[in-house]
Amino acid sequence: MLSALALAGLPEVTPGDDLGRLIAAALEAQGPAAAGQQTAIRDERPGLQEGDVLVIVHKVVSKAEGRIRRLSDISPSERAHHLADHLNKDARHVQVVLDETREVLRADHGVLICVTHHGYVCANAGVDASNVPGEDAVVLLPEDPDASARALRKRISELSGIAPGVLITDSFGRAWRNGQCDVTIGCAGIAPLEDWRGRHDSTGRELKATWIAVADEIAAMADLARRKDGSRPVTQVRGAARHVTAHDGPGARALIRPEAEDLFR
Amino acid sequence: MLSALALAGLPEVTPGDDLGRLIAAALEAQGPAAAGQQTAIRDERPGLQEGDVLVIVHKVVSKAEGRIRRLSDISPSERAHHLADHLNKDARHVQVVLDETREVLRADHGVLICVTHHGYVCANAGVDASNVPGEDAVVLLPEDPDASARALRKRISELSGIAPGVLITDSFGRAWRNGQCDVTIGCAGIAPLEDWRGRHDSTGRELKATWIAVADEIAAMADLARRKDGSRPVTQVRGAARHVTAHDGPGARALIRPEAEDLFR
Repeated sequence: MLSALALAGLPEVTPGDDLGRLIAAALEAQGPAAAGQQTAIRDERPGLQEGDVLVIVHKVVSKAEGRIRRLSDISPSERAHHLADHLNKDARHVQVVLDETREVLRADHGVLICVTHHGYVCANAGVDASNVPGEDAVVLLPEDPDASARALRKRISELSGIAPGVLITDSFGRAWRNGQCDVTIGCAGIAPLEDWRGRHDSTGRELKATWIAVADEIAAMADLARRKDGSRPVTQVRGAARHVTAHDGPGARALIRPEAEDLFR
Repeated sequence: MLSALALAGLPEVTPGDDLGRLIAAALEAQGPAAAGQQTAIRDERPGLQEGDVLVIVHKVVSKAEGRIRRLSDISPSERAHHLADHLNKDARHVQVVLDETREVLRADHGVLICVTHHGYVCANAGVDASNVPGEDAVVLLPEDPDASARALRKRISELSGIAPGVLITDSFGRAWRNGQCDVTIGCAGIAPLEDWRGRHDSTGRELKATWIAVADEIAAMADLARRKDGSRPVTQVRGAARHVTAHDGPGARALIRPEAEDLFR
């Protein structure tokens, strides 16, 4: 049994906020009294429990870390102007995207498909204007999302006595499918991949290619439990405890396919 | 609150089986007595309920539909021999893959990345040997997975009086990320995509690119609730009722990015 609940009670996050403390407080507030009102996660006890996974939309992490830029502060380069003309975009926005980008893979159909400095392949290097207060502000991905996840895990553990799995997520498009799914861009305390290669199925046959992106499946599930208006950026997932680890683990970088194995760059 | 439970009690499926009846019976068997033993889905009542989504691994659908081929029956073409040599694979297996393929996009690193006759881009056209009894049997994707989903929905509705959302899923790799996530290849009674474009976020700003592949996020969640040994191929998802529709809807074909918009073919 697996369940997910979007946490209520988190305030608007601003630069410098102690996000770990805000999340720990929202979990604490679930309390036993709230359980009867169905504001707590169903499967058993309210509050943070051993084996829980907290899935956090990167935007609140980025805001707390001050990863916000004002377009009025940007002087676009010639390359940004050129791309902006081609894509019918704001050259200042394009400049911010380029600043976050290691390599532009495609610039067409109104989007830039970029490899970020972390190595993620996504539209516009994850630079986004939605759910940000202020007309000319854009939010970047965290500079080191795995480090952000580790820090949040440590802080929540200090405050609550429990070290949850922590995922930081974003919505990524897919090369050949319509729509976006949430994926994990930073994590701590969770095994991001589950390797069944070499194990056997129910008929005794070896599972040759089964290597499950557990962290991305949890990210997708958490997104379903939220609303896209941005008002509930943290989802509590219970029932995935077998993927939660005592140590912080390899992080979401383990989810990046090495360039040498990439057939579609 | 969103929850998922892998159904117990489904027998090994063989060609000609009435899969809808087997699933309806497994749901019926949850009953009130089973609820106390935690074999029923938690969030409220056991058994199938209005708004539930049933997520079915394609392999049992394919088996029930007889979409199985024996390698000993296959005479590989020259092209299959050539690709098999290059990829270090069984030429008969490659021939089956080619038979299911509209276009081969890549043949490298031991895999064929194919566009199936349905239009899905995936490794080996979805042809798979795991969780199939018999040394030389391989399982194909259903011929028309949306039609399979509609038929299952109709049958389960006849037997139980409730028309659930029905998804048929497979594990697909991703171009730039390690590991696989389950995605939807056939569906009925569910809106596969949720379009927030033109709606507004909590700050009143328009959500420009938010178009969520709900069916794929449900598929991913359902996979997390299962075990990869193949013994629990059906997952019951509760709490996603707002995506369930009275009519069968557009099916999973709506998830296929049109070739004209594909930047990575």
